[in-house]
Amino acid sequence: MSEFLTLLPPPDALRLLLENLVIEPQPERVPSAESLHRVVVDSVIAPLNLPSFIRATVDGYAVHSADTHGAGESLPAYLKLVGEVRMGTMPVAPLQSGQCMIIHTGGMLPEGADAVVMVEHTQQALTDEIEILRAVGVGENVLNIGEDVRRGDEVIAPGTRLRSAEIGGLMALGITHIVVARKPRVAILSSGDEVIPPGEPLSAGQVYDVNSYTLATSVERAGGKPVIYGIIPDNPAAFRHSAERALHECDIVVFTAGSSVSARDLTAQTIDQLGQPGVLVHGVNVRPGKPTILAVCNGKAVIGLPGNPVSALIIAGIFVAPLLDRWLGLQSIRPKPFVTARLTVNLSSVSGREDWIAVRLIPTAAGYDAEPLFGKSNLIFTLARADGLMRIHPDANGVAAGSSVKVQLL
Amino acid sequence: MSEFLTLLPPPDALRLLLENLVIEPQPERVPSAESLHRVVVDSVIAPLNLPSFIRATVDGYAVHSADTHGAGESLPAYLKLVGEVRMGTMPVAPLQSGQCMIIHTGGMLPEGADAVVMVEHTQQALTDEIEILRAVGVGENVLNIGEDVRRGDEVIAPGTRLRSAEIGGLMALGITHIVVARKPRVAILSSGDEVIPPGEPLSAGQVYDVNSYTLATSVERAGGKPVIYGIIPDNPAAFRHSAERALHECDIVVFTAGSSVSARDLTAQTIDQLGQPGVLVHGVNVRPGKPTILAVCNGKAVIGLPGNPVSALIIAGIFVAPLLDRWLGLQSIRPKPFVTARLTVNLSSVSGREDWIAVRLIPTAAGYDAEPLFGKSNLIFTLARADGLMRIHPDANGVAAGSSVKVQLL
Repeated sequence: MSEFLTLLPPPDALRLLLENLVIEPQPERVPSAESLHRVVVDSVIAPLNLPSFIRATVDGYAVHSADTHGAGESLPAYLKLVGEVRMGTMPVAPLQSGQCMIIHTGGMLPEGADAVVMVEHTQQALTDEIEILRAVGVGENVLNIGEDVRRGDEVIAPGTRLRSAEIGGLMALGITHIVVARKPRVAILSSGDEVIPPGEPLSAGQVYDVNSYTLATSVERAGGKPVIYGIIPDNPAAFRHSAERALHECDIVVFTAGSSVSARDLTAQTIDQLGQPGVLVHGVNVRPGKPTILAVCNGKAVIGLPGNPVSALIIAGIFVAPLLDRWLGLQSIRPKPFVTARLTVNLSSVSGREDWIAVRLIPTAAGYDAEPLFGKSNLIFTLARADGLMRIHPDANGVAAGSSVKVQLL
Repeated sequence: MSEFLTLLPPPDALRLLLENLVIEPQPERVPSAESLHRVVVDSVIAPLNLPSFIRATVDGYAVHSADTHGAGESLPAYLKLVGEVRMGTMPVAPLQSGQCMIIHTGGMLPEGADAVVMVEHTQQALTDEIEILRAVGVGENVLNIGEDVRRGDEVIAPGTRLRSAEIGGLMALGITHIVVARKPRVAILSSGDEVIPPGEPLSAGQVYDVNSYTLATSVERAGGKPVIYGIIPDNPAAFRHSAERALHECDIVVFTAGSSVSARDLTAQTIDQLGQPGVLVHGVNVRPGKPTILAVCNGKAVIGLPGNPVSALIIAGIFVAPLLDRWLGLQSIRPKPFVTARLTVNLSSVSGREDWIAVRLIPTAAGYDAEPLFGKSNLIFTLARADGLMRIHPDANGVAAGSSVKVQLL
């Protein structure tokens, strides 16, 4: 068994885990229309200019801008109306000097035209003659070729998580399929002899499995594909059997250890025998979540979470979510959403330990107050009542009431 | 045609739309395991106490607390070890005064026991005798019946969007199925004779359909079920035919109008004939997105978005997302995530008009700077480069550089 690197702070523990893994996002081609929240593997290069033709940005008349110079309400320019640009078509003929053509927003400028006069600044003098009441400069009210993106530009960087806007951009370029990182399969194993599947008749001393479901949904939210293996009996042979199967079938194995110290130690020993280098971290300096186990077995991460559902869910946010980010090749291009709030009470903390506190956010005139939710133990409905979590930095001895704190929404 | 209530500010326009709709969330029963982000219709009442038995919160010995009074390192109390509580089972016998039983975290206290002494505060004196080195009070290191929730408590309020924590809570109570609001079917119709499906060969003057996909993904994110009807030719008969079908098949109809003023006016007239009361709002005092149409036809909302993809996506956030919230019965229980940032430049605005500005967020020592992204027009890749949107209130004439602004992430 590897030496215990006991009670590392979470960032150091995470770094140790990631250093022992070689992870490359695995490419998968999907329809762009179904790529929301997926992470792009390669640079997306524009295959065409956008726009690919000179477009009007207003309704009006395509003109040679020089023909409008000096035009005004009192001294209009008169241009010969020679037709209309139909949407989605190329204008039938070039525009000569002294001529104008009806054009609609998004329409293609005829050859020769270099600006559009808004319809509001014109007046129809005769059937085939338009009064121009305001001068336009070159390029006025038009969008030039490549003004949004130029052919050959990198339009989406590798590691970008796709939002509606990027999907719109892909479609604008006619890119109907995109290579994204395959969702890693995350095995979820629950354990504990007291744990039974929800809905079955409950005997005295038994509790329902919570972790399989909170972890599956948090894996799903973080971009992975959860695979629930169910409740594993609390003995090394059964655990080993299930863990080996999960390690074979999935990319990442996450389990919740039995609640007792002895059960956890047995589990750690079993994991250590599953593959090299084995257990890297057994115990993290964080509350809740101290008994966390981080291991790498034959190139795959194996993460042991505490059995307590609240601890398991918080620790999944600290270790499983960043691991999935790495798996997906996610680059931290976008800020993570959080709410800044005013802490309502003094919170004490042990220096060196990172604390995570569930808080309720209460709207105030200035923004939000963050009110910690305390409970005797880590209760699942305490977490359900919380809006988010705040972190107390390991270097801090606590946080004073009135401080501005960042709250990560649950 | 209804009178034009021209250029209402967005909140008034939204209110008018909602006032003309009678929407009740429609119940649908789903497995709790698959209910992430769904919205609960009815109160969830706890069918059992949680915990349903008195549980140890540490590893140690179940005791009568009175037996430990006065115990300390120098003067231990001696208790007779009478067995072990096996996880998931009811202790075999009640605990008598003077006795103790090995118990693990989460184990059920034997009858008679009222506290647990942590194993760290004990010492094994003889095979069947334990030295207690620290006194415990009644209820110490135990979780009482109903301490998390009591049978009959409302544990989840109607209108709550389910997160991992709530799903965990449901499972803890053995609630494997839950009644949530059915996802409303949202018809999405694109129009414009210049618009063709992405991937088809592009002729001069044509552009690819962007709106179908940006709107479908934003409906998906907001909890609806998008139904793409494709690109409708820009004429009243074709539009009417498709809109009638969409209105029949879906709960909400969202379309993007043709880009020209005349096309939009024709569309508004057509919608007005689809059902009562017809068009309620034609033009909203917002930039971008002024030519927005809001209608109710025979009890269903019909929303006309601008043809410009950036405007369409922003306006969907202002009208479609809140409409979906109403459809789902979502109560604003949780704060929406946003990032507070320092605006880098002065922004001017017209009083009375609401402006939405795409910004990039740049990390600084203090937090984030919000840098507006300006473009000649509303370009889709300008939006793809943005991290979020900031709103300039209709009452403001602008926002000064250095102001703290709220940025809603895209």
